[in-house]
Amino acid sequence: MAVGEVFKGEVHPVAGVRLAAIESGIRYKNRLDLVLVEIEAGATVAGVFTQNAFCAAPVKVARKNLHDTDSRYFLINTGNANAGTGEQGALDALRCCQSVADIARVDIREVLPFSTGVIGERLPVEKIVAGIPLAFTSLDESSWEKAARGIMTTDTRPKLVSRRIDVEGESVSITGIAKGAGMIKPNMATMLAYVFTDAAIPRKQLKEILGRASDKSFNRITVDGDTSTNDCCMLVATGKSSVAVNAEIESAILGVFQELAVALIKDAEGASKFITVHVEQGANSKECLAVAYAVAESPLVKTALFASDPNWGRILAAVGRAGLEDLDIKAIEIRLGEVQLVSGGEVSASYTEALGQREMDRDEITLTICLGRGDSVETVWTSDLSLDYIRINADYRS
Amino acid sequence: MAVGEVFKGEVHPVAGVRLAAIESGIRYKNRLDLVLVEIEAGATVAGVFTQNAFCAAPVKVARKNLHDTDSRYFLINTGNANAGTGEQGALDALRCCQSVADIARVDIREVLPFSTGVIGERLPVEKIVAGIPLAFTSLDESSWEKAARGIMTTDTRPKLVSRRIDVEGESVSITGIAKGAGMIKPNMATMLAYVFTDAAIPRKQLKEILGRASDKSFNRITVDGDTSTNDCCMLVATGKSSVAVNAEIESAILGVFQELAVALIKDAEGASKFITVHVEQGANSKECLAVAYAVAESPLVKTALFASDPNWGRILAAVGRAGLEDLDIKAIEIRLGEVQLVSGGEVSASYTEALGQREMDRDEITLTICLGRGDSVETVWTSDLSLDYIRINADYRS
Repeated sequence: MAVGEVFKGEVHPVAGVRLAAIESGIRYKNRLDLVLVEIEAGATVAGVFTQNAFCAAPVKVARKNLHDTDSRYFLINTGNANAGTGEQGALDALRCCQSVADIARVDIREVLPFSTGVIGERLPVEKIVAGIPLAFTSLDESSWEKAARGIMTTDTRPKLVSRRIDVEGESVSITGIAKGAGMIKPNMATMLAYVFTDAAIPRKQLKEILGRASDKSFNRITVDGDTSTNDCCMLVATGKSSVAVNAEIESAILGVFQELAVALIKDAEGASKFITVHVEQGANSKECLAVAYAVAESPLVKTALFASDPNWGRILAAVGRAGLEDLDIKAIEIRLGEVQLVSGGEVSASYTEALGQREMDRDEITLTICLGRGDSVETVWTSDLSLDYIRINADYRS
Repeated sequence: MAVGEVFKGEVHPVAGVRLAAIESGIRYKNRLDLVLVEIEAGATVAGVFTQNAFCAAPVKVARKNLHDTDSRYFLINTGNANAGTGEQGALDALRCCQSVADIARVDIREVLPFSTGVIGERLPVEKIVAGIPLAFTSLDESSWEKAARGIMTTDTRPKLVSRRIDVEGESVSITGIAKGAGMIKPNMATMLAYVFTDAAIPRKQLKEILGRASDKSFNRITVDGDTSTNDCCMLVATGKSSVAVNAEIESAILGVFQELAVALIKDAEGASKFITVHVEQGANSKECLAVAYAVAESPLVKTALFASDPNWGRILAAVGRAGLEDLDIKAIEIRLGEVQLVSGGEVSASYTEALGQREMDRDEITLTICLGRGDSVETVWTSDLSLDYIRINADYRS
């Protein structure tokens, strides 16, 4: 199940980027599971990585290689996360990189490895290395949708977002792909996401833009509060458009990031609802996020959302346990869509079950919580907790 | 569904305590839903209450009354939590207390109200007040099992634990009841639990013993990470045995607390497994608890436990996101029962899926996580996350 529609707009290639997705049989037959991305020399590359202490071998290799130099190739496999695999895992990731570097005649540090899938099993290096030559011959500028499919695991549909804007008479393309449906609560980092633009953005500035954009997109989503060992988000600027970065381009990049983040949640494991938790009037950003995540991660709130039950008591209880000091219950207002649920810490005089039910029956629901103690605002996106979430995670070794 | 067996030992009355449980039709017909506990004058009483900022009206009243004087009566209703009910909720709780005080001819402050059930609906005071006279005439020393049933909500079975120990030739009884199956992560407080002893314990010391005992029992359990608005735990010492408190009695009290806490988890909503998460070799208690709760509250770990899937990668990922600084993956050891799953941050050389499966198939599972960086130890108890948890919470307005 998934909420809403997939991206249906035009996909704009990004000059200087070619992609390929092939079947290498890593875990399943007849499944795209190996993606190669080629970036022309001269591009700048920035990345953010999982804060999980047990980050996977490819994350360590990618982080180090990116620190040393701008990247020319991304090699992404599904079916195996190469996590919890110790020293052998690092050697395996490096062998895959070496295979790409040999064919492309680049330095091994110019190749970044990414893996997603089962944790704790050895990476099937031979299958990957055997597939790399075909990946090279398949590279082209238009394989975005195929690449988006090639990085899917429990995702039920590809996540691909593309925009083109005109800047001073020149057009700039921003196109990105992402994957991830469970084990999602990025912590100062993100899921697997790759966004490319042909704008020209110096490396230092690219890193800053990536930090701001991921902070307001992938770092504001949660499915189950679990941070993966393999989260990565990469931003690449090829500079081929000869347009220098400006505020408008940064804003468009943020837009692509947010659309991809929302697409992840709409296809979250078992999701039947897409929930926006909007916290207003907080004393600071930190307490707004504490409240937003307490609500967005409450299994009781999430099952009530699954059941379309306007059980506002569970929302109130979640706000109350968020750990805010001196929270004045009488200042609290909670809205479900446009309907006021709670004011003054108790059920609103204008509220009726019928009004609440009408809002709850929608596929996309916004919960607004006003704290009445400041000007800070934060938004977090999440999904409901459904029977299918349990079925998927009880049945699938991911 | 529930794990293991209910308490089957002898139930020891506590001299100075009488109980009654009656049907007052608060939410359902033909259901025990109102419990009255009478404590003889001269007893000491201590209580700990929820830290949820939106604590319910009866919690506020009980906390204040207990501060003013030792209590003579507990009045406990199910079916309605009297939470999120504003000023009216406080008035309603006081009206119930006044009704008890009038019949018993005690000060209203000697009556403590407790409510559990649906949040945000007005307490049906008339039904409760109408039932109180029958509750008084039904009071007796042996109605423990009935009282344990009378405080149940989504619990599938009563929680009752009783012990008798001999101290210097005199016998001391400790008997307690508790309820709670969901919205369970007490935060420096507990669920509804009432423990009574006929030992003599001065008020100040009773409070300290309650703090230590609840900290190592009800404050070490989690079902879904949700802290209720109505959690309370009361400890009463009637002094009728003429035995003064000593270390042995405190240890027996802790034992009763822990047995009740374990009983809550074994009957947690949808529980098919009882899980003990044991963290060893931490630098301090705080980091042991951070790791224990990260594992015990991970939906992915909990669904793997439901599926009896020895998916150790999910456990490792949860440990890795617990937020410990400078965690050395190579020092980590994880055991499932007696089977070593992980050592040196990767799968143990001696581990086989068959060994893991054998441990996972059990109803009661102990996960041990050794951090290799100190001497601190903490234990947390939890349940799995099952299809029935979702069904119960999607179907039931609690």
